[in-house]
Amino acid sequence: MNKGTFVVLASGRGSNFQAIIDRVSDGYINAVCTSLITDNPDAYAILRAKDAGIPAEVVSYRTFPDKNMYENALLATLARYNPDLVVLAGYMRLLGERIVDLYKGKMMNIHPSLLPAFQGLHAQRQALMYGTKVAGCTVHFVTHDMDAGPVIMQRTVQVLDDDDEESLSERILIEEHQVFPEAIKLFFEKKLLIKGRRVFLLPRT
Amino acid sequence: MNKGTFVVLASGRGSNFQAIIDRVSDGYINAVCTSLITDNPDAYAILRAKDAGIPAEVVSYRTFPDKNMYENALLATLARYNPDLVVLAGYMRLLGERIVDLYKGKMMNIHPSLLPAFQGLHAQRQALMYGTKVAGCTVHFVTHDMDAGPVIMQRTVQVLDDDDEESLSERILIEEHQVFPEAIKLFFEKKLLIKGRRVFLLPRT
Repeated sequence: MNKGTFVVLASGRGSNFQAIIDRVSDGYINAVCTSLITDNPDAYAILRAKDAGIPAEVVSYRTFPDKNMYENALLATLARYNPDLVVLAGYMRLLGERIVDLYKGKMMNIHPSLLPAFQGLHAQRQALMYGTKVAGCTVHFVTHDMDAGPVIMQRTVQVLDDDDEESLSERILIEEHQVFPEAIKLFFEKKLLIKGRRVFLLPRT
Repeated sequence: MNKGTFVVLASGRGSNFQAIIDRVSDGYINAVCTSLITDNPDAYAILRAKDAGIPAEVVSYRTFPDKNMYENALLATLARYNPDLVVLAGYMRLLGERIVDLYKGKMMNIHPSLLPAFQGLHAQRQALMYGTKVAGCTVHFVTHDMDAGPVIMQRTVQVLDDDDEESLSERILIEEHQVFPEAIKLFFEKKLLIKGRRVFLLPRT
């Protein structure tokens, strides 16, 4: 049987991308990462892709006359790879409705907070400013509403009294690197059942 | 040196009230609970107070002509006990600004969610409907905004696939019964330092 495939969309450093492809390499995720797609021609993630022998595609918003054309290009790039799953790993651009609809239930994002708390940018800073004692990260399916789709997995991190944004972000990132590969693994094992807003874990067979 | 004193406000069953006075009895909390105050003449918490030899005061909203008079009565009752700390343990009535101002930094509440997520009523049901994987409880200082004061402590609970509101609430309650006495203990040890929205834990001396 052919393995499932996925593409990763990332805009920056790509540390989650690296964590994911490492877990493909060691056999934990039983699927193939067929491409890295980025909107940022300078993304360090591109180098990681090259190191891993994974094609890197740059679809840069700035090179298109409008949002619609950009989305057409992104859709065309995705269609070329025809992935079973689209993984948003620090992709800093909101995806249009057409893309979200096309990959409904087949697109995951990770967010550095315990959603629904601290949606949007700088979630870790928001958590510190609020004074929460427990932070964390959330892997969720992507829907039209930003940072609000069905939650697949969450991991918690204690906020320490001497935390700043950087130290808290680093500890959350450690959890992200574990939980995101786990969610992808479960997806390809067909263990994730979406029912409304809830995601259930099917029993091992 | 005289021990510090606190009063507990509760409207219902009083399971947190019981957990707290149990930890006074066994010496964990170094303070005296001088009264239970309730707005509900039928609260089971009243029986718990009697069993523990703690005076129970009923200040029932319905017996006063308006909110202002009710608050006057509640303030008068509080003043009689002149507590160092006011503990809201399932008190189902919003307190007026005068009371909140008077006990600023000296009034704690517990809420069955990881604030800022799921404020207001039926927090556990809200968590299940959202599909969050991590629920919990929050002890916080009370401010004018409901369920939004500086966070003292939080405890997490995993949401299970077969959880309903009752089962999740029960597991959260187990954590509430541990974390609320701990926060009160730390308050009387003068270990809690409020700075803006954050609460820091002072080192042991």
